[in-house]
Amino acid sequence: MSDIREEALRLHKEGKGKLEINLKFPLNTKEDLSLLYTPGVAEPCKEIDKDREKVYDYTIKGNCIAVVTDGTAVLGLGDIGPYAGLPVMEGKAALFKRFANIDAIPICIDSKDTEDIIKTVKLIAPSFGGINLEDIAAPKCFEIERRLIEELDIPVFHDDQHGTGIVVLSGIINGLKLVKKNIKDVKIVINGGGAAGTSIAKHIINYGAKNVIVCDMKGAISSDDPNTFVGQHHGELSKITNPNKEKGLLIDIIKGADIFIGVSKAGMLTGEMVETMNKDSIVFAMANPVPEIMPDIAKKHGARIVGSGRSDFPNQINNILAFPGIFRGALDARARDITEEMKISASIAIASIIKENELNEDYVIPSAFDERVVIKVGEAVKNAHKLK
Amino acid sequence: MSDIREEALRLHKEGKGKLEINLKFPLNTKEDLSLLYTPGVAEPCKEIDKDREKVYDYTIKGNCIAVVTDGTAVLGLGDIGPYAGLPVMEGKAALFKRFANIDAIPICIDSKDTEDIIKTVKLIAPSFGGINLEDIAAPKCFEIERRLIEELDIPVFHDDQHGTGIVVLSGIINGLKLVKKNIKDVKIVINGGGAAGTSIAKHIINYGAKNVIVCDMKGAISSDDPNTFVGQHHGELSKITNPNKEKGLLIDIIKGADIFIGVSKAGMLTGEMVETMNKDSIVFAMANPVPEIMPDIAKKHGARIVGSGRSDFPNQINNILAFPGIFRGALDARARDITEEMKISASIAIASIIKENELNEDYVIPSAFDERVVIKVGEAVKNAHKLK
Repeated sequence: MSDIREEALRLHKEGKGKLEINLKFPLNTKEDLSLLYTPGVAEPCKEIDKDREKVYDYTIKGNCIAVVTDGTAVLGLGDIGPYAGLPVMEGKAALFKRFANIDAIPICIDSKDTEDIIKTVKLIAPSFGGINLEDIAAPKCFEIERRLIEELDIPVFHDDQHGTGIVVLSGIINGLKLVKKNIKDVKIVINGGGAAGTSIAKHIINYGAKNVIVCDMKGAISSDDPNTFVGQHHGELSKITNPNKEKGLLIDIIKGADIFIGVSKAGMLTGEMVETMNKDSIVFAMANPVPEIMPDIAKKHGARIVGSGRSDFPNQINNILAFPGIFRGALDARARDITEEMKISASIAIASIIKENELNEDYVIPSAFDERVVIKVGEAVKNAHKLK
Repeated sequence: MSDIREEALRLHKEGKGKLEINLKFPLNTKEDLSLLYTPGVAEPCKEIDKDREKVYDYTIKGNCIAVVTDGTAVLGLGDIGPYAGLPVMEGKAALFKRFANIDAIPICIDSKDTEDIIKTVKLIAPSFGGINLEDIAAPKCFEIERRLIEELDIPVFHDDQHGTGIVVLSGIINGLKLVKKNIKDVKIVINGGGAAGTSIAKHIINYGAKNVIVCDMKGAISSDDPNTFVGQHHGELSKITNPNKEKGLLIDIIKGADIFIGVSKAGMLTGEMVETMNKDSIVFAMANPVPEIMPDIAKKHGARIVGSGRSDFPNQINNILAFPGIFRGALDARARDITEEMKISASIAIASIIKENELNEDYVIPSAFDERVVIKVGEAVKNAHKLK
C-alpha cells in the first residue's frame, strides 16, 4: 500500500493532474484560424441562435458532461472540500474518457449549500450534455439530484447512489441464476441506509424484489416504528421495504436472509452471522477499502457467492461497469433523463456479458476492463430510452 | 465568404465541436486504475486537504482556465445567449491550447444577471487556475471583472477589454519609433467608448500618453460636460482623458491628431478626416469585419501607418498576440491577478519581436502565428509579476 501511495503521488505530480484539452483539428494557418475562429465561427453561432438544438451538431455539448462535486463525501475521506476532491473528479473524468469516450470536465463547487449547488449547475449547464453528480453527502444529494432532474433538460445522475445499485443488481441476477432462486422469493438485507443503500433498495425492488430490509444504525427500518429512522428519507424508504416489519439489529435480521448487501463499514458482518443465512447465500460486502466481511471469511462460513469492492478478490462490484455505458447510452439517445427502465436495462446488460456456461461462484460480475460492457450497456440504455 | 461559411459549418459539424479531453497517462490495467483512481487517488486528496496550495502540484488547476461568457456580446452578433455563444468559447479555448498550451474549458452561463455571473464563477473557481471573461456586454463586464478580481485568488482577465489595448499599444510603440514621435507629445483619438475603448485609453495613459480623447455617440467625452457621457463609466473615464477639454464630434476632434484608434463601426473614419490629421499619422481601425476605414483608403489619404483587425491587410491587431502569453505568464508565476505592469510589459514584449532594422510601415505588429510572441510575452508577464 505504501508503494501505491508513493507511486500515486509521484504520477499525479509528474502529470500535474490527469487530464488535458486537445484540439480536434489542426490550427496552423490563417485559413484554419478563419474557419475555427473568426470570421467562420460566426456561422455555427448563427445556426444555433436560430435553432438551439443545433448546439448538439456544432459543439462539444453532445459528448461532454460535467463531473460535479462539493467535496463533502469524497471516497472514504469524508468532507475534504472542493479543492482536495479535485483529484477524484479528474480520475472520474479520466474513466469516462477511457471507458466511454465521453469528454468529462471536473467542476468542484465551493459551497456546501444545496441551493447554491443546484443553481450553479443549472447556470453552467448550456455547454454540457449531462451532469454526473459525485461524492456529495447525503441527504442533500437526494434533493440536489431530484431538483436538477426536474429543472434541467439534460440527464443528471448521482453515481454514488445509482452506480453501485446497478452493478449489484447485475450480480444478483447472475447469482440467483446460479443458485436457482427467484428474485420474488428471496430475503435481501441491505446494511447501510445512506445514499447508496437507499438507491440499491429502490433499484432491486423496481426489478422485482419483494422482501428487502434496510438496516441502519438503529436496526431494521420499519414503517410502523419511526424510532428506526435515522435519515430524513427513511420514512419514505420504510414504505417500500420490510413488508413483514421485522425488528432488530443486523444480527437478528440477517437470519434466514438469501442475500446480504453491505454499504456500511468494515467488519459489520461476522462469519457467525453468515452461518445464520439461508442456504446458497449471496454476500456483497462493499465497504471500502475494508469490506463488511473479508470475502474468504464469508466463504469459509458458508456463503456461496461473495463479491466486494476489491479488485484482489473475485466479483468486484465496480461502478465502472455502469456509469460509462449509462452516460454513453443517454448521450447517444439524447435522453432528457435517466429513467429506472434505463438503469434496469443496464443491470441486465452487465449480467448478460457472462454466458450461462461461463457463470460460476467466482464469476457473476464481469471484469472492469471487459471492453464489451460499455458497448452492451450503452446500447441497452439507448434502447430503453427509445421504448419510452 | 460563402466558401468560408460553408466550410466552417462543415468542420464544426464533422468534429461536433473543436475540443476533446484526453488522459495524460494510460489507463489499461488494474494497476493503472489503482494509481489514477481508487485507492491511490486518495493520496493527493489527503495532501491537498492538509495544504490547499498542493492543488497546484497534483491536479490540472495550475494549467487550466475557464473561458466564461453569458453570450451577451458575442463577436459582432450581439446578445445571442450562452448556447449560440459556445462555438466562440470553444474556439477561444482552442487558441489557448494551440498558442500557450493552456487547458481552457468553455463555461457558458445561462443568466444575464451580474450577481448570478459573479457568484457562479466564484463557486466553480476551485478547479481553475484563471478566469478569462469573454464576450460579456458592457457595462456589466466592468463590474463582473472588478468584483471577481477582488474576490477570487486566481487571475481574472476580460480579453475584450484588455486584449486589444495591449496589442494596440505594441503597434503604437513601434509606430512612434518609426515616425520618431514621443508618446508624451502625441494626440490620440479613440473612437468608441465601450469596454475596449475604455480599456485602451487607460492602458496607453498608463504607458505615458498625455493627450487621449475618447469619442462616443455624443462626441468627445469631456469632464466638464456630462452631456457627453454615454456610458455610466464615462464620468470616470473623462477624468483621465481629454486634458484640453476639446468639444465636438470625431470630425472636429480628429484634426491634428497623431493617432486614431477605432473600436466602433464600419465607415466611421473618412479619407477626408484622415487628411486633417497630423503629419505621419497612425490609424488603427479595428471594427470587425469591416473597419472604420479600409486600410488602402486611409493610406491614400495620407496615413503613414495603418492597422486593422483584418488578416488580409498588414499590421493585424489580433488579440491572439496577447491573451495566450498573458495567461501563460500569469499561470507560470501563479499570479493572484494581472496587473497594469504585467499588461504593459506584454505590450512591450510584443513590440520587441520586430527588430529596429525590420520595422517598417507595414510591419509594426508581428504575425499572429509568430511562435516567438507567446514565449516573449509569457516571460515578460512572469517577470513583471516577480517585480511587484
